[in-house]
Amino acid sequence: MIYLDNAATTYPKPEILYEKLDYAYRSLSFNAGRGHYQKAQDAYEAIEKTRKFLIQKANGKSLVFTPSATYALNQIIQGINFEENDIVYCSPYEHNSVARTLNAVRKSKHIELKLIPLNKDLSIDLSSFRFECITNKPKVIFCSHVSNVTGYILPIHEIGQIAKENGSIFVVDGAQAFGVVPVNMEEDNIDYYVFAGHKTLYGPLGIGGYLFCTNELNLSVFGGTGTDSLNLDMPKEGNVRFEPSSPNAVAAYGLYHSSKWVFENDVLSHERFLADYLVHKLKNIPEIILYSNLMGNRTGIISFNIKGMKSDDVASILDEDFKIEVRAGYHCAPFIHDYIKSKPYLGTVRISFSYFTTIEDVNTLVNALEEIVLEV
Amino acid sequence: MIYLDNAATTYPKPEILYEKLDYAYRSLSFNAGRGHYQKAQDAYEAIEKTRKFLIQKANGKSLVFTPSATYALNQIIQGINFEENDIVYCSPYEHNSVARTLNAVRKSKHIELKLIPLNKDLSIDLSSFRFECITNKPKVIFCSHVSNVTGYILPIHEIGQIAKENGSIFVVDGAQAFGVVPVNMEEDNIDYYVFAGHKTLYGPLGIGGYLFCTNELNLSVFGGTGTDSLNLDMPKEGNVRFEPSSPNAVAAYGLYHSSKWVFENDVLSHERFLADYLVHKLKNIPEIILYSNLMGNRTGIISFNIKGMKSDDVASILDEDFKIEVRAGYHCAPFIHDYIKSKPYLGTVRISFSYFTTIEDVNTLVNALEEIVLEV
Repeated sequence: MIYLDNAATTYPKPEILYEKLDYAYRSLSFNAGRGHYQKAQDAYEAIEKTRKFLIQKANGKSLVFTPSATYALNQIIQGINFEENDIVYCSPYEHNSVARTLNAVRKSKHIELKLIPLNKDLSIDLSSFRFECITNKPKVIFCSHVSNVTGYILPIHEIGQIAKENGSIFVVDGAQAFGVVPVNMEEDNIDYYVFAGHKTLYGPLGIGGYLFCTNELNLSVFGGTGTDSLNLDMPKEGNVRFEPSSPNAVAAYGLYHSSKWVFENDVLSHERFLADYLVHKLKNIPEIILYSNLMGNRTGIISFNIKGMKSDDVASILDEDFKIEVRAGYHCAPFIHDYIKSKPYLGTVRISFSYFTTIEDVNTLVNALEEIVLEV
Repeated sequence: MIYLDNAATTYPKPEILYEKLDYAYRSLSFNAGRGHYQKAQDAYEAIEKTRKFLIQKANGKSLVFTPSATYALNQIIQGINFEENDIVYCSPYEHNSVARTLNAVRKSKHIELKLIPLNKDLSIDLSSFRFECITNKPKVIFCSHVSNVTGYILPIHEIGQIAKENGSIFVVDGAQAFGVVPVNMEEDNIDYYVFAGHKTLYGPLGIGGYLFCTNELNLSVFGGTGTDSLNLDMPKEGNVRFEPSSPNAVAAYGLYHSSKWVFENDVLSHERFLADYLVHKLKNIPEIILYSNLMGNRTGIISFNIKGMKSDDVASILDEDFKIEVRAGYHCAPFIHDYIKSKPYLGTVRISFSYFTTIEDVNTLVNALEEIVLEV
């Protein structure tokens, strides 16, 4: 099997993760912060060590763990103090964890949603956006750090500048970026930066979160915190305010080790090398429509179609005849397909690399696609 | 170490769980239902197999997985269509995952919260409750299946009967029960039954959920579902409507194997034998105040205090001098301490057994307590 669906979840994980998870299940699977004994303390410290490490890597100030990036985005979007007619911008690259949650808030709180304009080459049109903001001052700006459809690295530094100029809250969805693409929350003016443990951080399923400098969110999840139990309100202070439920010390411990591994390796250069190589090869196949011309400014995610074929059919053939696992469809990204005009193909065929993808894997893929186009 | 904090999280887990989790991380850690290839299908089927197994064991009709019991209770409580002045009853045994979430809804939707009355022996006063319901018709009744403070098994069948008589929605928090104490959703008239994977099901952290017959909840979490991606609303049908975010196939696979192990073993008889034995022993120590006289109708959770000592101090001595790990405090249960009068002790010392606790462990604990009371 050649696995090229790493944007869904990275696989395999570094061996160190499997080993550390097995250790943690056997030795750290305690209810962190809920008991005074050593094992509960060890579990607590494992979580805090991970928190500290990730904060430092993003140049943030604090971090709330959630069960996933989706839950993090729900906490943020449902936690912002929206008022009627507030204007909210998001990029057309957003995932449904942003788009659907914003749409629900739009209906209940009557906010106005707008899409950040794109240039013809699908990059963010910064000057138009800056101009639009003069008359449509955004309360909040949402943008992905990396598109899960095209691998495009969005100019978050420049968008952060626009957010700052307008006094907007700036939320970046780093689910396809953190660990692979550098971020500096302070320099980029980011208020909330979301990450997914099991994607670019090569960690386990079941852990994600958001980094921030000041957490001014209203509460949207309630429960036990192991502290102040007689208080029917959530604690006023500390991350525990936003982290009810038994903390997942095992996943946090695994995430520390996988993240450490990610930050020690230059995943981006490897992915970009493979992506540039694949783009170069695919450009020579006239039946292939590529949805990215942003050479150099991307991670290892590439979308394409084959003229005359549904994206799903291409993925099925790659799976069944060549044992190459890719993803087809809309990839939970509801807006971008209008821009890239992929709807006649019912979405795109998406290739997503990891640090473990080899040049041989890419060659096998290219050969397979060359065979497939001969049959069309 | 003698670990007697199994109500926080069961430890150790059955060896089969560790083995299956390691296998699943290496072989099933894919994004279930998000790709058409075999590995994504395998992950999907692992989840569905677990779902089916748990539904059958509870005699429910369907099941939604969430990251934990707390998230399940948030989905339920925030999802019920409350109207102003609705009356909601909960038992005084509820955990903050119910109490705090209900309190938040009370403030935003102006519902009226009431506690189910107790008899002097701390059991549910069914006849008073039935009588109260005549004038205070409950829209919803919440109750724990097992108290996480005293181990009391609440009469959910009889409470379910009262719910039925009043046309109330009946929600049972089975976090301390499922797998250990039998439940029959149909016979007990339960609308939503909540479970925690890492407690009585001896599974991994990071998975919980709720069983139901008909899911009439409003949505409170939004995100990608891998389906119908161009739709900015959540899918109308199926569990996927309530399960956004990458499914945790690894945890679900582990949960299947741990649950299977639980249902094959008579955990309740073992725990009850130890609990009865401990109660018998503790009754002979006059300095000890026991908070349960419900011999026979409990699981392996027992709360007590030592006259003249704060609960925390007892737990610290047990940890430091005897390597016995117990929990002290209010155990995230805000109401029950007024009834058992444990506030002068800042809560209770809680002992909670598992299938792996031995009679020798209990004897060691009793000897330790006998030594401690000599020092008071």
